[in-house]
Amino acid sequence: MATVLSGKEVTAAINASLSERSAALLADGIRPCLAIVRLGQEPGDIAYERGAMKRAEAVGVAVRQYVLPRTASQEELLAVIREINEDTSVHGALLLRPFPVQIDDRTVRNALRAEKDMDGITDASLAGVFTNTPCGYAPCTAEACMAVLDHYGIDPAGMRTTVIGRSLVIGKPIAMMLLRRNATVTICHTRTKDMAREIRRAELVIAAAGQPKMVTADMLKDGQILIDVGVNVDEEGNLCGDADYEAAGHLDLSITPVPGGVGTVTSSVLMRHVIEAAESLR
Amino acid sequence: MATVLSGKEVTAAINASLSERSAALLADGIRPCLAIVRLGQEPGDIAYERGAMKRAEAVGVAVRQYVLPRTASQEELLAVIREINEDTSVHGALLLRPFPVQIDDRTVRNALRAEKDMDGITDASLAGVFTNTPCGYAPCTAEACMAVLDHYGIDPAGMRTTVIGRSLVIGKPIAMMLLRRNATVTICHTRTKDMAREIRRAELVIAAAGQPKMVTADMLKDGQILIDVGVNVDEEGNLCGDADYEAAGHLDLSITPVPGGVGTVTSSVLMRHVIEAAESLR
Repeated sequence: MATVLSGKEVTAAINASLSERSAALLADGIRPCLAIVRLGQEPGDIAYERGAMKRAEAVGVAVRQYVLPRTASQEELLAVIREINEDTSVHGALLLRPFPVQIDDRTVRNALRAEKDMDGITDASLAGVFTNTPCGYAPCTAEACMAVLDHYGIDPAGMRTTVIGRSLVIGKPIAMMLLRRNATVTICHTRTKDMAREIRRAELVIAAAGQPKMVTADMLKDGQILIDVGVNVDEEGNLCGDADYEAAGHLDLSITPVPGGVGTVTSSVLMRHVIEAAESLR
Repeated sequence: MATVLSGKEVTAAINASLSERSAALLADGIRPCLAIVRLGQEPGDIAYERGAMKRAEAVGVAVRQYVLPRTASQEELLAVIREINEDTSVHGALLLRPFPVQIDDRTVRNALRAEKDMDGITDASLAGVFTNTPCGYAPCTAEACMAVLDHYGIDPAGMRTTVIGRSLVIGKPIAMMLLRRNATVTICHTRTKDMAREIRRAELVIAAAGQPKMVTADMLKDGQILIDVGVNVDEEGNLCGDADYEAAGHLDLSITPVPGGVGTVTSSVLMRHVIEAAESLR
């Protein structure tokens, strides 16, 4: 029988602490505030924004929406970011990406000041993750994986860990975070020759491939911990992770579900960053 | 019988190309110039500097030495770095480290402009390595490992690779470079539980632990490629690598020797960076 590492439980614990911290800030006259920058009406962006706003409401964080048309020029977008950088009542920003083609992603990302970069998208924040020195904030999803481990008392030190995926959003930063916590880390990707072997030998698996149900029961074994970062849609149109959760149900795994796993924790980590940013100005 | 991956052979090939490129620059009136900044008379610094100057001479790179007393203040050191940043006749700089205790390493490192950072010590250069975007220059030793692989036609794509060490000078950057080249990368360190197992299963081993002869023959097997980054002194006072080269001699390995391996290539990679920096201004 699999043990469910419930994201909702982690979220509840984080939110309780965040609500206290935002109340303390408010008592000092500070309302933590997150800017969300969106270009156009992409359904994915809107869904993500709605989720973030709901979470913000729950923990006492204000949201300011900056909506530009999808056809906005890079200069218009940079002007909004400059405004956010200079506005002391806005503590951090989330830029909904990918941007449309007329926008140079790297230029815009790096225009945001690191201390307002709530999701680790600037080179400065990423350098902080790589070099293990405080600068900006780490990508929320990677930090959410660590929050799940911490909540359930799982210490990755010395663990053989396999990370599936090498993106800057999750694969590379989670590898760096696990190294810092003394795990032995293997990074796999689409060009890995024998993925099943790399997954089977791990004590801890971080699945961040973005491929529905690519981690199948035959790649897994009793006793493993599996953090499933994937948010995919299966053939029946249902949300599913990177792991075939049902097929692996007979194994003695500890596993995060999708939905209700890492995703929900990610939203709370984002709010934690906003509150930290507001606290840092006290 | 082990096959020797001679660093000298790689160096000779790189130097030949560098001499041509520096001659072409000189024909345009540009003498590539490297600044070396040293605090005091530490024997290790002086030995390193001497090696770099010899290599610079061989490939037509000028060296300008900036020597401060070991007791220099951080402000004095920063003034030198500002001078180098602004001097268009100096194309790049090497700061001999570790600095003495009165100097904050991170502040000084990051004062150097990324485009003059010849050895990947600024956060901006390291972010470039992590995010795989061009910025500054990568750490020379990590790039030297890749140069050895390239020279001998070893393509790491799909290879199970074990990196021993997680430093910013070599372990982490070489892991990122190998990932970019599609290797499956495992990063090990002092807290890894079964190092022998991680080394034995690899097709390619990058040993950068800085521990004399810690990779012993029983951890290795026929057919492996071993890049030995260690520069250590053994009990008899001789230079040795991280691998027990003699004990492993009966195996069918491809291995870089110490001395005469990665170290010599590193100096040429440094000069290549200076010449690239000079070329970028044409």
